Amino acid sequence: MKKLLVEFIGTFFLTLTVATAAVLGTGTPYAPFAIGSVLMVMIYAGGHVSGAHYNPAVSLAVYLRGRSSLQDLISYIVVQLLAGVAAVFVAKALVPGQGVDPLALKSTPTLISELLFTFALAWVVLSTATAKATSGNSNYGLAIGFTVLVGAITVGSISGGAFNPAVSTMLLVIGKLRIGDCWLHFLPQVLGAVVAAYAFKTTHPEDR
Amino acid sequence: MKKLLVEFIGTFFLTLTVATAAVLGTGTPYAPFAIGSVLMVMIYAGGHVSGAHYNPAVSLAVYLRGRSSLQDLISYIVVQLLAGVAAVFVAKALVPGQGVDPLALKSTPTLISELLFTFALAWVVLSTATAKATSGNSNYGLAIGFTVLVGAITVGSISGGAFNPAVSTMLLVIGKLRIGDCWLHFLPQVLGAVVAAYAFKTTHPEDR
Amino acid sequence: MKKLLVEFIGTFFLTLTVATAAVLGTGTPYAPFAIGSVLMVMIYAGGHVSGAHYNPAVSLAVYLRGRSSLQDLISYIVVQLLAGVAAVFVAKALVPGQGVDPLALKSTPTLISELLFTFALAWVVLSTATAKATSGNSNYGLAIGFTVLVGAITVGSISGGAFNPAVSTMLLVIGKLRIGDCWLHFLPQVLGAVVAAYAFKTTHPEDR
Amino acid sequence: MKKLLVEFIGTFFLTLTVATAAVLGTGTPYAPFAIGSVLMVMIYAGGHVSGAHYNPAVSLAVYLRGRSSLQDLISYIVVQLLAGVAAVFVAKALVPGQGVDPLALKSTPTLISELLFTFALAWVVLSTATAKATSGNSNYGLAIGFTVLVGAITVGSISGGAFNPAVSTMLLVIGKLRIGDCWLHFLPQVLGAVVAAYAFKTTHPEDR
Repeated sequence: MKKLLVEFIGTFFLTLTVATAAVLGTGTPYAPFAIGSVLMVMIYAGGHVSGAHYNPAVSLAVYLRGRSSLQDLISYIVVQLLAGVAAVFVAKALVPGQGVDPLALKSTPTLISELLFTFALAWVVLSTATAKATSGNSNYGLAIGFTVLVGAITVGSISGGAFNPAVSTMLLVIGKLRIGDCWLHFLPQVLGAVVAAYAFKTTHPEDR
Repeated sequence: MKKLLVEFIGTFFLTLTVATAAVLGTGTPYAPFAIGSVLMVMIYAGGHVSGAHYNPAVSLAVYLRGRSSLQDLISYIVVQLLAGVAAVFVAKALVPGQGVDPLALKSTPTLISELLFTFALAWVVLSTATAKATSGNSNYGLAIGFTVLVGAITVGSISGGAFNPAVSTMLLVIGKLRIGDCWLHFLPQVLGAVVAAYAFKTTHPEDR
Repeated sequence: MKKLLVEFIGTFFLTLTVATAAVLGTGTPYAPFAIGSVLMVMIYAGGHVSGAHYNPAVSLAVYLRGRSSLQDLISYIVVQLLAGVAAVFVAKALVPGQGVDPLALKSTPTLISELLFTFALAWVVLSTATAKATSGNSNYGLAIGFTVLVGAITVGSISGGAFNPAVSTMLLVIGKLRIGDCWLHFLPQVLGAVVAAYAFKTTHPEDR
Repeated sequence: MKKLLVEFIGTFFLTLTVATAAVLGTGTPYAPFAIGSVLMVMIYAGGHVSGAHYNPAVSLAVYLRGRSSLQDLISYIVVQLLAGVAAVFVAKALVPGQGVDPLALKSTPTLISELLFTFALAWVVLSTATAKATSGNSNYGLAIGFTVLVGAITVGSISGGAFNPAVSTMLLVIGKLRIGDCWLHFLPQVLGAVVAAYAFKTTHPEDR
């Protein structure tokens, strides 16, 4: 239960920051810095309890890499998605009456953006937080958080910059992501996580 | 006494940076980066002496978590508030003649903002700087400082982004926070610290 | 092979970020932050496998310092340049139809810029990632990545801010660097790496 | 000699970044990020060789704290000032023909700004890089560099944001600081270093 509480807290603050600073615009144009940083700080606060995934795609990659059980995977994903939904209601209370225009997404650029940066995120997570060779390095949180900073700056204007099904769920509920466009986020996010897990296994034979 | 001197130095530079860069506007629009960073650097400079709270809400959370005495709590809070008042006079000497318009705060969004990010700040402090499991990690200062960066970017335009009764005291004395609005800061800040202490205890049974 | 895969991934994301955020303009004006950060995160993700050079000039400096074989040097450079070319095609798919105006470079300022900051980059790499005296310090990735942030902010408007033949190759293929101007990048980059290797050897006699 | 070479390299890149990005304006408005970061990366590159002062005020504070000889102090200061002068000529070659308007400084705000942030800088250096209690913490470079980031954002528009006699010497030679205004920089910088040394000794009795 304490693992799930930590996953809820971390995912809630991550998705709340995206919803408030980026979608509702309180942090524009510095929202990417807030988003990358909130992921970093919540990783340092919760990593030793839950692993600090805060992202179903990361939980999937960690599961495929063999570091969590199927039961953990499922319960983590449920809690992460609930946290994303909860963030919508709190963000709306923070910025009452603010309208939201849905993203006008182009299919191919969106698919590539979400695939590449979800891969990068899961690749950095697995390499910095689950490999034996990096176990003494304290900078996993900095590396993981700032991967999202990079993606948000680089492709935020193309795909919305989610790289995380909990963030995409929040975007859907708040009205920023159209239902018909959901697959442009969820599909490449899952695929990016799977590819990252196998890339990690290929390059880290000693960690099997 | 050396603990109190370190708390004074750290809280003074934190509140001076908020007063000068944000309230008096010398650092606009980069004030959040200066504020998060000054907290980080003063934590690295003073953490080994005083614990580097620089914030009565953090001191309260650390006390409730069982890491400081009631006497330390009271003396720290007195020194932190004095440092916040001192910062007002120095900031006014740095930017003479600059007028200050008080914040026009909406009650509910302000209460939620200060509650959530004071909770986040105390949660990150307790988890990264007082838990056994993170005792070897050097990045507590980065995590704590950048939590304030996140809050300043995300809800700075909503509540003023204090998350710290010493900062709110400075805002009151400098004329940015109306006396009638004080409870919108102090009440949720205290509440956030209390909730964080109990959330920490729930998720860290081995640290009791 | 796993070393080369890691070099490909890291160099691809570095050059893709430069191509998309800076050249095609999706990250303007925050591209330098994305570029410095992507180098940092890819170093933390891959350093323990390949050394995380992601830059032929760095590979040359590491070779001259005596930390890699000639065969590694050549294979790394080939993979890094291929990754830079691959990034062009992906960046164009991300931002279809975006035109590119070639840089109007002045010879002397460009040569000095690329020389100085390639030197700085190789100097920081050798000192933080290959010296005995810094072997316990986790911050090599932060230091190396942010060296590029400094260069991109400071001389990005002068030389384009490459400091890396793989980045310059990407700039050439995408049409940002004129063929006739190539030597203004490649020559000082090689020279900067050579000077850094000898400066390192002079100041680190115990690391020979 | 290798110590002096490292001091020259670090101070040269620090003062060159200030001269180019801030004074000649290539990095505006992000110059503070480049300046804080270049100090950080040069500290990580050179700290193990020379102590990475790159600043006569820091060298003075380290001397007063009892960590260097008078001979080192003098030779460091000479080299640091020479590096600042050298940076002027290189910066002018990077941005040829760019005019420089001298700062219009107000005495009291300038004196307070330079005093406070030179104190903060020396305080952070002594506490994070010379105290026994922080000897295992890798983040001294991050803390020291970002102290300058804080000062540059907060009081850069008031005093010019030097906090370093080598930077002030560069500002003098490049024409940004009037000769008649020199004492507004040098005097509080020396004073800030002295006060920091005694504040450190008071709060760190075990480090004597």
